[in-house]
Amino acid sequence: MRYGIIGTGAIGGFYGARLAKAGQEVHFLLHNDYDYVLRHGLEVHSWQGDFKLEHPNVYRDTHEMPPCDVVLVGLKTTNNRLLPDLLPPLLHDKTLVVLIQNGIGVEADVQQMFPNVSLAAGLAFICSSKSEPGVVRHQHYGSINIGNYSCRDTSLIDKLLAELREAGIEVNLVDYETARWRKAVWNMPFNGMTVALGCQTLDLMQHPLSRRLIWEQMMEVVHAAQAMGVPGLDEAFAEKMMQMTDDMVPYSPSMRLDWDFHRPMEIEYLYTRPLQLAREAGCPMPRLEMLEAELRFMQDNR
Amino acid sequence: MRYGIIGTGAIGGFYGARLAKAGQEVHFLLHNDYDYVLRHGLEVHSWQGDFKLEHPNVYRDTHEMPPCDVVLVGLKTTNNRLLPDLLPPLLHDKTLVVLIQNGIGVEADVQQMFPNVSLAAGLAFICSSKSEPGVVRHQHYGSINIGNYSCRDTSLIDKLLAELREAGIEVNLVDYETARWRKAVWNMPFNGMTVALGCQTLDLMQHPLSRRLIWEQMMEVVHAAQAMGVPGLDEAFAEKMMQMTDDMVPYSPSMRLDWDFHRPMEIEYLYTRPLQLAREAGCPMPRLEMLEAELRFMQDNR
Repeated sequence: MRYGIIGTGAIGGFYGARLAKAGQEVHFLLHNDYDYVLRHGLEVHSWQGDFKLEHPNVYRDTHEMPPCDVVLVGLKTTNNRLLPDLLPPLLHDKTLVVLIQNGIGVEADVQQMFPNVSLAAGLAFICSSKSEPGVVRHQHYGSINIGNYSCRDTSLIDKLLAELREAGIEVNLVDYETARWRKAVWNMPFNGMTVALGCQTLDLMQHPLSRRLIWEQMMEVVHAAQAMGVPGLDEAFAEKMMQMTDDMVPYSPSMRLDWDFHRPMEIEYLYTRPLQLAREAGCPMPRLEMLEAELRFMQDNR
Repeated sequence: MRYGIIGTGAIGGFYGARLAKAGQEVHFLLHNDYDYVLRHGLEVHSWQGDFKLEHPNVYRDTHEMPPCDVVLVGLKTTNNRLLPDLLPPLLHDKTLVVLIQNGIGVEADVQQMFPNVSLAAGLAFICSSKSEPGVVRHQHYGSINIGNYSCRDTSLIDKLLAELREAGIEVNLVDYETARWRKAVWNMPFNGMTVALGCQTLDLMQHPLSRRLIWEQMMEVVHAAQAMGVPGLDEAFAEKMMQMTDDMVPYSPSMRLDWDFHRPMEIEYLYTRPLQLAREAGCPMPRLEMLEAELRFMQDNR
């Protein structure tokens, strides 16, 4: 299949580069790094092995890109207002758009912009960052879960899964709601708390009170998801997330990096939307609401 | 009556100086400021009028101080471990010790150190600070509520109230539990949140989400106090605290000053103890527990 990558950063850059390395036709949209990557290529420094695409197909404008069968969107959700302008040139009748983005409510909003487009969620379990122009650092993990949101042609999804696997990526097809809310179990505590306390994941795990707080915040997400009837979330899953974080290198989640580099934080989809849904389901999340308030305050007063 | 002041800072210094100015015999324990005050006197710069005690009775060791009828303790609770050493020389059979200190559980712990001493709580509603040696700045308010904890001779309490009033201080006799928990309605949100967000009281009032959070935290205290059967706490009182803070100059509560000046924060009596009592009463305070976790994390990782 022909792939388009919107947002060639830590996420889109990594999965796009792996697909290209495996022989797929991949077209990358770049912004700041365009000139550098055109000249020097796109490098991935990965714990699974470094590699480089010498001459990737790079663009600085989607109007020069061909229609694609699959578009991987790796933009920050804070830039999703650009999608009505960016996305149309890449779409044909059956294009599958995979939103590899953080938070809850992203697909609903993008579907409103493009009522007829097939959408899926991509839940990346990966520690990666774009540290310098044209270089993606892939520090840990790397799997991706795909949740079908509105794609009727499931053979297209199957093909995507097969081609990702051929590219050496661990991939699973998961229930859409389950996948998004499972991801929130980790994302909601760690993204905000590392910003609020100016620390990394492991610091939060090592102090007894912040560790307990992280656990309580995880359980708020689990209980809200259960109240909404989302299957597959329970205490055992939260325990797995705690264990995984204990085993992880000390890590700065994407919101911490956004804060450090003075970029807007993805508060809307990581906090505001799921908090609202939980409230509507009669199961509010007080500690995560407090965290949202702290983050909004920090962003608005910096 | 003869007064002893343990901790001649923003609080003890202010009330002690006002009593001395009104003609009472007052003995001040000083630490860092001893030499300065001995030479230059003790100044109060107050919105109600500046004044100076040219030659106050100052000491650097309580063993040189006379027994007193009333001892006002203005120490930080983080220094209460010093009381078994500091207090005995000032005590006679009927000495009343007034703890003008922050938090919940202070009297219980001091009573354990001195089982036979008469204790009262002093709840200072005052914006004041010790900005430089020998100078107390009194910016706003100034009233004090006295709650009797274990003093059987109520005429002693009455006399204290009368002498404070003669010194121009607004003073009220209040129910001990009510007074401590009412103070917590303001103290618990604002002390910690100004540290967690590195701001002043008015900043928290002006952002819609932090304002809502402050209100929710106030209501956590109100509900916990109600669950414990403490009279005099309701939504109307919390509304009064919101209104008062709106009307106040932008203010850094004592915990914010402690943090800024790298002093230990009074987390134990301002958070840990009331949170524990609320939990035991079946009415936990999740947002304030989260705040305690953030503060402990900050203090232990600085």
